[in-house]
Amino acid sequence: MARLVMKFGGTSVANLDRIRNVAQHVKREVEAGHDVAVVVSAMSGKTNELVAWCTDASKLYDKREYDAVVASGEQVTSGLLAIALQEIGISARSWQGWQIPIRTSDAHGSARIESIDGSSLVNGFNRKEVAVIAGFQGIHAESGRLTTLGRGGSDTSAVAIAAAIEADRCDIYTDVDGVYTTDPRIVPKARRLDRVAFEEMLEMASLGAKVLQVRSVEVAMVHKVKTFVRSSFDDPANPQPGTLICDEEDIVEQQVVTGIAFSKDEAQLTLRSVADKPGVAAAIFVPLADANINVDMIIQVVSNDKKSTDITFTVPAADFERAKVIIEGLRGDIGYESLQGATDVVKISAIGIGMRSHAGVAARAFKALADKGVNIRAITTSEIKFSVLIDAEYTELAVRTLHTLYGLDKP
Amino acid sequence: MARLVMKFGGTSVANLDRIRNVAQHVKREVEAGHDVAVVVSAMSGKTNELVAWCTDASKLYDKREYDAVVASGEQVTSGLLAIALQEIGISARSWQGWQIPIRTSDAHGSARIESIDGSSLVNGFNRKEVAVIAGFQGIHAESGRLTTLGRGGSDTSAVAIAAAIEADRCDIYTDVDGVYTTDPRIVPKARRLDRVAFEEMLEMASLGAKVLQVRSVEVAMVHKVKTFVRSSFDDPANPQPGTLICDEEDIVEQQVVTGIAFSKDEAQLTLRSVADKPGVAAAIFVPLADANINVDMIIQVVSNDKKSTDITFTVPAADFERAKVIIEGLRGDIGYESLQGATDVVKISAIGIGMRSHAGVAARAFKALADKGVNIRAITTSEIKFSVLIDAEYTELAVRTLHTLYGLDKP
Repeated sequence: MARLVMKFGGTSVANLDRIRNVAQHVKREVEAGHDVAVVVSAMSGKTNELVAWCTDASKLYDKREYDAVVASGEQVTSGLLAIALQEIGISARSWQGWQIPIRTSDAHGSARIESIDGSSLVNGFNRKEVAVIAGFQGIHAESGRLTTLGRGGSDTSAVAIAAAIEADRCDIYTDVDGVYTTDPRIVPKARRLDRVAFEEMLEMASLGAKVLQVRSVEVAMVHKVKTFVRSSFDDPANPQPGTLICDEEDIVEQQVVTGIAFSKDEAQLTLRSVADKPGVAAAIFVPLADANINVDMIIQVVSNDKKSTDITFTVPAADFERAKVIIEGLRGDIGYESLQGATDVVKISAIGIGMRSHAGVAARAFKALADKGVNIRAITTSEIKFSVLIDAEYTELAVRTLHTLYGLDKP
Repeated sequence: MARLVMKFGGTSVANLDRIRNVAQHVKREVEAGHDVAVVVSAMSGKTNELVAWCTDASKLYDKREYDAVVASGEQVTSGLLAIALQEIGISARSWQGWQIPIRTSDAHGSARIESIDGSSLVNGFNRKEVAVIAGFQGIHAESGRLTTLGRGGSDTSAVAIAAAIEADRCDIYTDVDGVYTTDPRIVPKARRLDRVAFEEMLEMASLGAKVLQVRSVEVAMVHKVKTFVRSSFDDPANPQPGTLICDEEDIVEQQVVTGIAFSKDEAQLTLRSVADKPGVAAAIFVPLADANINVDMIIQVVSNDKKSTDITFTVPAADFERAKVIIEGLRGDIGYESLQGATDVVKISAIGIGMRSHAGVAARAFKALADKGVNIRAITTSEIKFSVLIDAEYTELAVRTLHTLYGLDKP
């Protein structure tokens, strides 16, 4: 007998038929003798509808009210799944974030979980009662107001609850059957991974693989929550195991590169002929940081005469226009010749903890891409990944090239 | 400066345009210097959608989960209206029932308000902040679970909150501009009443006028809450006063009959040739009461030979089939000859506190209806109203006849 958290995303609870299907997955685990806490998202499309209403009411909506509005989506699904479970003979009750409570910071719209009191859920287990928990939401204790955790926040709810109740496992059910070496829509030969290390999953999520919210992987890593990514579209009577996200030492045969991720949400800005004097980088990047714009890749190329320099950097595509306005406003201070921008760029990343012990992994990629005629605009590397910024039109070619290069095509 | 509660029903908050219109009504009162608490229903259609999902999940759904699901509708509107108010420069925040808290019984699906702590709302007024309250919902303190008050419950929320914060007035905004002498769709000459006594409104609501939930009128009467029924479709800059529901003594020129109500939700059952022996009425009506079936009108006609009797009674149309099954099961015990039922019947009622001091009011109606060829199946009377059960096809004729008879056509 184990204690499980099962999390179901929006497409898994999109309508009553899907909710009944989820109930069958839960029933299987209950009948296997496990204590089960289920975490649910809003029905797919619901959160978007609620967000659109807030934006319609005011472009500068109060995020505290936004949270009250959007948290209602998960409330509905939690009640409906509890009813669907009771209908097939499984004792169950719904829990809203504030009822447990799941305490969060007051950063409305993207709150962080601060503590979870798991005792009421455990009391429910002692009554053989499944806990059906509204994901994505919590309460700020001091103000007593509803909070939400940001897009994908139900993943984080699930992992944090698993940590709070010391669950043996957290199963994240989604519309894919696991974590792949890369997006199978781009590389048909992409393979589902049996295991991924927490650190790798963290990089993949940060670098564009949308299978899990980044924050949820951080929480899983810190609290060592054994987390599976698996499909709710499997036959409930005969499900596939999915991908286990686990400690590095639990992975026996480690590849050098585990996966290739890519992100289209990038934009590039280049300042031409910046006077190369001390403090110029601070003059550019401090104002961007003050405006909460996340600068990712930075490259600086000194000109032949060594008197001026070109500075290129990337920002999230959503912040591109804002960043441009800020840099244009700094022209007098910085003294650059021209500002160029590009949004048709993509960041391709290769991730693998094996890179720690293998030299020259990135260099092989630069050569392979050059051989295919792919021009690299910028490069960043870290201990277990490297990323290249390229023109968007080369996305598929570059992903396939790297996927083959690192032996990920092989079964 | 006064303290107001303003309540807006589903059609008044049906979409963002309607919510913005509500914000203008609120703005008018805030700019007049009043402290304002607003109570909102779910967007029209939303509650039906949520109820349908619960029924789809299980015909015998857990009412506690039903409450969690359907309470979400008001949560959404409260947040959206708070945002819409802020957008036009009015300080506002949303309040869920559990946040105030509005404490209720644990009769999920039709809970009764037990207490309301108005202090947090009053603190908001001191900050010049409009309270936007999710109607229809509360919390059962012992279990910590969400409750709802039953259909039309937001009216009761509004009046109960008005009592708790000692409001000077409770304005119920709806899609009609007040309480009418009868349904204007049936009698074009129907007039809007300036004032109606609490007792009269209670009878009208009980007898089929759907303008207010019965329970809300009871609460208003007990706590002497000056309640207006008025239209949210009026120009917010130039609204009409609507109908005041008030104490009898505040009504100067009292009519004998104030209004004509009718209810189509009736069904009639007749037991022919029941053996006329002591205890037969108990044998019929106790089992119905045990099954929670509300018997309304009862008439008993003794046959010429005085050995048997016919017993006719009415039940809500929704309980007709259940009542028939129960009575058929009692045939052996009671010993009647045949059971007849009719659902094409309607109950027409005339209401007026003036009846207390005027004799023969009902008798005039019986004659007027007979003159028009309307057959009366059953009659009930009380201090301030009488009702007749007639064939449904005579509904309009009977309502118009009584409306004219009691002088309600006159301006």
